[in-house]
Amino acid sequence: MKRIITIGREFGSGGRELGRRLSEEMGIAYYDQEIITEIANRTSLSEQYVQAVIEHRPSFSFPIHIGRSFYPAVSPVFEQSMAVFQEQFRIIKEMALKSDCVIVGRCADYILKEYRPMRIFVYADMESRMARCRAKAPEEEEMTDKELKQHILGIDKKRAKYYEFYTGHKCGDKLNFDLCVNTSGIVIKEIVPGMAAMLKR
Amino acid sequence: MKRIITIGREFGSGGRELGRRLSEEMGIAYYDQEIITEIANRTSLSEQYVQAVIEHRPSFSFPIHIGRSFYPAVSPVFEQSMAVFQEQFRIIKEMALKSDCVIVGRCADYILKEYRPMRIFVYADMESRMARCRAKAPEEEEMTDKELKQHILGIDKKRAKYYEFYTGHKCGDKLNFDLCVNTSGIVIKEIVPGMAAMLKR
Repeated sequence: MKRIITIGREFGSGGRELGRRLSEEMGIAYYDQEIITEIANRTSLSEQYVQAVIEHRPSFSFPIHIGRSFYPAVSPVFEQSMAVFQEQFRIIKEMALKSDCVIVGRCADYILKEYRPMRIFVYADMESRMARCRAKAPEEEEMTDKELKQHILGIDKKRAKYYEFYTGHKCGDKLNFDLCVNTSGIVIKEIVPGMAAMLKR
Repeated sequence: MKRIITIGREFGSGGRELGRRLSEEMGIAYYDQEIITEIANRTSLSEQYVQAVIEHRPSFSFPIHIGRSFYPAVSPVFEQSMAVFQEQFRIIKEMALKSDCVIVGRCADYILKEYRPMRIFVYADMESRMARCRAKAPEEEEMTDKELKQHILGIDKKRAKYYEFYTGHKCGDKLNFDLCVNTSGIVIKEIVPGMAAMLKR
């Protein structure tokens, strides 16, 4: 059976770093930007556009009046978003079937559920998340603590809406994961060998 | 530094079994009934009584009127409960300092927080928890599914109140744990070697 590891995460918790390092430690594939590139190739949309679509769930436009009833207008933007998601759905399945792998985000836990992936959720307290964001931010970026916290919570919220829209499940509900890892005050690379040892069993 | 593992758990999730097997696999102490016995020895209360006190948080009796103000009456039962908790507090600290160990429940994550234990939380979906309870129940015990579910939720609630009373923290909040493990549909002994490998690192 394929060894598939999916990683859901809170923004700033180091989930992506954990995924990348785990894949290196275990010697298995890590799919991230490759998925965007492949969707762009298959849909003739630009990578930037695909990235933007993937970061937002599609939104309906206002209902328009047809005859006596109201119908939601299905806009071209909405349809394109759905097409991108469907392509992502197909690509993630193809990639996961090709080889053992780690996939971060992208509703992969849901998309691959029939293959029983090991579903990991990475989270941390706000202090650690803010510290991780500051360590990675470009030098010229100057946000107050309040702004940074709002930025982090905003991204969490956007990801949650995206996840809930496409999967119908509550984002971050621990019952949708096999293992939840708290990275507060943790140096990610120090926990990777142990986690890899567990996941190899 | 001592290797201390504390395990919080939902009722029926197999947390106690996981704790016991982990301690065996890692070759470290497992403290469970020993704690009750030691409290009983030190307080001259019976083990049954200590067990009962530990399973319920103490409750205030109704306020009584003294002079012009209302004061909560601190009853002998309440004071005994507090004494048992304080004794438990001391004993858990002593045991944890004596040797590497696994301690299930008993607010050990909170009591030992200054020693930075690895705090594990074990949970599962209701179906698995009911199946585990049925497998362990005496043959003559006949509960309907509805009764069993209520029983499970009742024990969770009682434990949560106990935990919240003594620690001031929300029970089961994932930020109070380093690792949360979903045992739905899992055979506990199969995940133990992997977890032990991770925890030994």
